Amino acid sequence: MFKTLLVLFYFAFISACGADNATDQQWRALDVNNTVLLTLPHGKVVIELAPQFSPKHVEQFSALVKKSFYDGTTFYRVIDGFVAQAGPKDGSKKDKLVPVLAIEGEFSIDKNTPFTAVQKGDLFAPQTGFQAGFALANDNNNRAWLTHCPGTLAMARGNDADSASSHFYFVIGQAPRYLDRIMTIFGRVVYGMEHIQAIQRTSVIEGEYAVDSRKHTAIISMKLMSDVPKAERIIIEVESTESAAFTERLVKRRARDHEFFYKKPPPVLDVCQVPIRSRLVKLPN
Amino acid sequence: MFKTLLVLFYFAFISACGADNATDQQWRALDVNNTVLLTLPHGKVVIELAPQFSPKHVEQFSALVKKSFYDGTTFYRVIDGFVAQAGPKDGSKKDKLVPVLAIEGEFSIDKNTPFTAVQKGDLFAPQTGFQAGFALANDNNNRAWLTHCPGTLAMARGNDADSASSHFYFVIGQAPRYLDRIMTIFGRVVYGMEHIQAIQRTSVIEGEYAVDSRKHTAIISMKLMSDVPKAERIIIEVESTESAAFTERLVKRRARDHEFFYKKPPPVLDVCQVPIRSRLVKLPN
Repeated sequence: MFKTLLVLFYFAFISACGADNATDQQWRALDVNNTVLLTLPHGKVVIELAPQFSPKHVEQFSALVKKSFYDGTTFYRVIDGFVAQAGPKDGSKKDKLVPVLAIEGEFSIDKNTPFTAVQKGDLFAPQTGFQAGFALANDNNNRAWLTHCPGTLAMARGNDADSASSHFYFVIGQAPRYLDRIMTIFGRVVYGMEHIQAIQRTSVIEGEYAVDSRKHTAIISMKLMSDVPKAERIIIEVESTESAAFTERLVKRRARDHEFFYKKPPPVLDVCQVPIRSRLVKLPN
Repeated sequence: MFKTLLVLFYFAFISACGADNATDQQWRALDVNNTVLLTLPHGKVVIELAPQFSPKHVEQFSALVKKSFYDGTTFYRVIDGFVAQAGPKDGSKKDKLVPVLAIEGEFSIDKNTPFTAVQKGDLFAPQTGFQAGFALANDNNNRAWLTHCPGTLAMARGNDADSASSHFYFVIGQAPRYLDRIMTIFGRVVYGMEHIQAIQRTSVIEGEYAVDSRKHTAIISMKLMSDVPKAERIIIEVESTESAAFTERLVKRRARDHEFFYKKPPPVLDVCQVPIRSRLVKLPN
């Protein structure tokens, strides 16, 4: 009985928050011009870029990727449970030639863009949800921002807000949400996250021998999928976060009505703990 | 000015919550009788057990470890971003011989046990904090429970609350806090978490070839540290969560007063996003 009430309540909540826009299209193809194929020594990773949220960062990153800028660079700062960061040698000519970018850490809410609400009263924000496959949060003042969930791709920077250029990081641990709004997130891993998790850690615990920099994981290549010969492409579809099926999955995930849950957890959802499914359409021949 | 106020506020809060018990002992040695050395094909992992919270589970797990029960078993359910689960072949004689355990998912708060408060109004619990190196939460009704953070070790079970026996899992992704209170957590990784992250995933995405079970990661050995010859021991010390230094670190982590934070994040902490440091005292000769 309690269970049923929760589900009904949640449907009402969802309905009031714009998921009326939900469609029956459960899967969505990725745009090859906004998809990156990252080849590591131990596996391949597919990244979806987010030009709708961070246009200038995506533009610069894509341009760098197009000219093979990252090929041969290494993940030089990899802290277990936190981030895996890569880029050219600090202060090198290659590093300095890239122009700095104005931060794109947040944006104004466009009421016409479908938004799938997840949680009011999240620890770090008044509300969380999904838009076009990306986890995000908003305040009560018309501002929204992408959230630092595992698999998030963001640009590193110095102390200045507007100092990011080419160095980037993947989140590999518990969501460091305190970085929300003050960093520019511009993509997310949609395939091969286990290979990001397997990148050589460079940070060592006190008392341990330092990791030899020659052991740091190198990027074999990073290409826009549109520049990868068709036979070598990995083609992925991702769950549409605007679909009726996804909304239904959120409701079920919150209600936890399987008998395994002999005692109900609180009916809340951490936006970074909701997996967005991918499915493989085609591996390279 | 705002920064200073926050810090002062937090000191007051801490002080009101029992961290008066804080000591100057920043590091604490692990008890070799409550420490496990897990050897995987790709690296060694050290686990601290939690008999003070889950005595029956630790007792049974330790007894199994002592008789090399897990040696040669595999991680047969490894889902990226969620858990890495191991145990004997389901339904095998070895599996069935292990007695089931009554769940130890929560316990009554002992007011005399030092508790370092972290956050009131956490999304999943009225309050979170640390006790003896373990992240935990409590309600307003004298009940407390360990929380499912990355690196947590817990016993798997069937639908019955009291059906866990020998199968265990490590949390390898964003904290699945909805499992709090309904599973028995009985340890945590204190060294080598990157090797847990590198365990072969067994769950594949739709459209991908299934992972051959012969590729599943096997446990080479699992031993109580007290049973490991001294020359082969990995000796770790962990940060005392009851120390003044740890409390101070929490305050700083919440205040984020480095100039990098040109705009302040909300002054809140996710208990699963606070790293508890380890330091290496001795590697095997």
